[in-house]
Amino acid sequence: MLSKSQISFIKSLHQKKFRKEHRLFIVEGIKSVTEFIHSEYIVTDVYCTENVMPKLANLSQKIKLHQISESDLDRISTLTTAQNVLALVRLPDNKDIETLHLNGTFTLALDGVQDPGNLGTIIRTADWFGIPQIICSEDCVEAYNPKVVQATMGSLSRIKVRYGDLPAILKNTEVPVFGTLLNGTPITETQFGDEGVIVLGNEGSGISEAVINEISNRVTIPGLGKAESLNVAVCASLFCYELRRNILK
Amino acid sequence: MLSKSQISFIKSLHQKKFRKEHRLFIVEGIKSVTEFIHSEYIVTDVYCTENVMPKLANLSQKIKLHQISESDLDRISTLTTAQNVLALVRLPDNKDIETLHLNGTFTLALDGVQDPGNLGTIIRTADWFGIPQIICSEDCVEAYNPKVVQATMGSLSRIKVRYGDLPAILKNTEVPVFGTLLNGTPITETQFGDEGVIVLGNEGSGISEAVINEISNRVTIPGLGKAESLNVAVCASLFCYELRRNILK
Repeated sequence: MLSKSQISFIKSLHQKKFRKEHRLFIVEGIKSVTEFIHSEYIVTDVYCTENVMPKLANLSQKIKLHQISESDLDRISTLTTAQNVLALVRLPDNKDIETLHLNGTFTLALDGVQDPGNLGTIIRTADWFGIPQIICSEDCVEAYNPKVVQATMGSLSRIKVRYGDLPAILKNTEVPVFGTLLNGTPITETQFGDEGVIVLGNEGSGISEAVINEISNRVTIPGLGKAESLNVAVCASLFCYELRRNILK
Repeated sequence: MLSKSQISFIKSLHQKKFRKEHRLFIVEGIKSVTEFIHSEYIVTDVYCTENVMPKLANLSQKIKLHQISESDLDRISTLTTAQNVLALVRLPDNKDIETLHLNGTFTLALDGVQDPGNLGTIIRTADWFGIPQIICSEDCVEAYNPKVVQATMGSLSRIKVRYGDLPAILKNTEVPVFGTLLNGTPITETQFGDEGVIVLGNEGSGISEAVINEISNRVTIPGLGKAESLNVAVCASLFCYELRRNILK
């Protein structure tokens, strides 16, 4: 059974302020929790109901396993309907943003993406298409927000997401910087080569002026209808797909 | 000023039950409302604050225009932050599902899509790529749910969305029925031709058995990473993109 103070500690992690303070975030569901356990992330505690215990039998001794009641799980869960396992995971250190390699790989750069579902879907799609890393501007939604974690369906455990000063990072890279802008080359005719950064902008206002200045290759996703724009996670998906299209089979 | 009963009538339309009973749904925001006014939908009432009145000056006389206060707008809005205009729009008649033409065009068929954001994004993306119509199974989320309407960003006004018995409809069509399934032809090598139905399944359980039986062309979206699946709106987008890819520029 969990004490009141344990419950209130875990519930505090529903909020960004306390995640930052305690350097911990919440992951729920047996699939996602298992994926985080087998990733580079450090899982500190796993809370689960009796029926899930066998699935978690061979955990490393560094992970504290707590068997709790369903009602306690409901209390600490971030979901409307709790799944039967919840883990506390260390926030990754963001310092390696300074030494992140952009050469020889593809990176997504998100400029002010606000919606947790969009960020989660982008992380999940990047994982599907083998795009290993994402740089977010400081004003993007936090990747450890429970709604983002949930929407990634476990993919957050495999994709490196870091936060930093986007214009400065893009100014210092030698790889091509692709961005969705009007009057660009159609995406169907764009040669992505084998390295580059793909910039995606805010849901309402698009890519900010400071970041536009660092874009070397303007790309347009052509449309046939009357819609004014595409959802940012859809844009990201079309880029991930198109730049991998030649090697997909 | 709105009376209590007017407010309570409009607020009742936040719920599916009353939308069905009164055959009306809510659209918010000047861009979307204007698009619905200029569409085949019948807009019955427009509620707006004083500053928006000039933008709505030349409305057809069949539309009742109500100038209301910001606080009244907040009361009737389905949004956390109300936009400055809200319209009541007639639910379309679903009867033409029986005579819907699938020949010579592309149609999306959604089998149990539950998330309003996903349905909204799919409608918006269909509009972008010029896919004119969507058939939903009866257990899909309702397209006139305020969250769906909002996520379509006005595209619902242009795309025909109808509900029906998917297996029966697919059984009776002569056009190819494409569906995302394991062990299919890679989407990059699929010849879509110039007509067909694209089937997309439920977020958790995929395409149901009864609908799988009607799929003539199994298609797989190849991946390169370890993610188990893609978000359904992302899948829909990749299909819409790929089947239009040759004519996009």
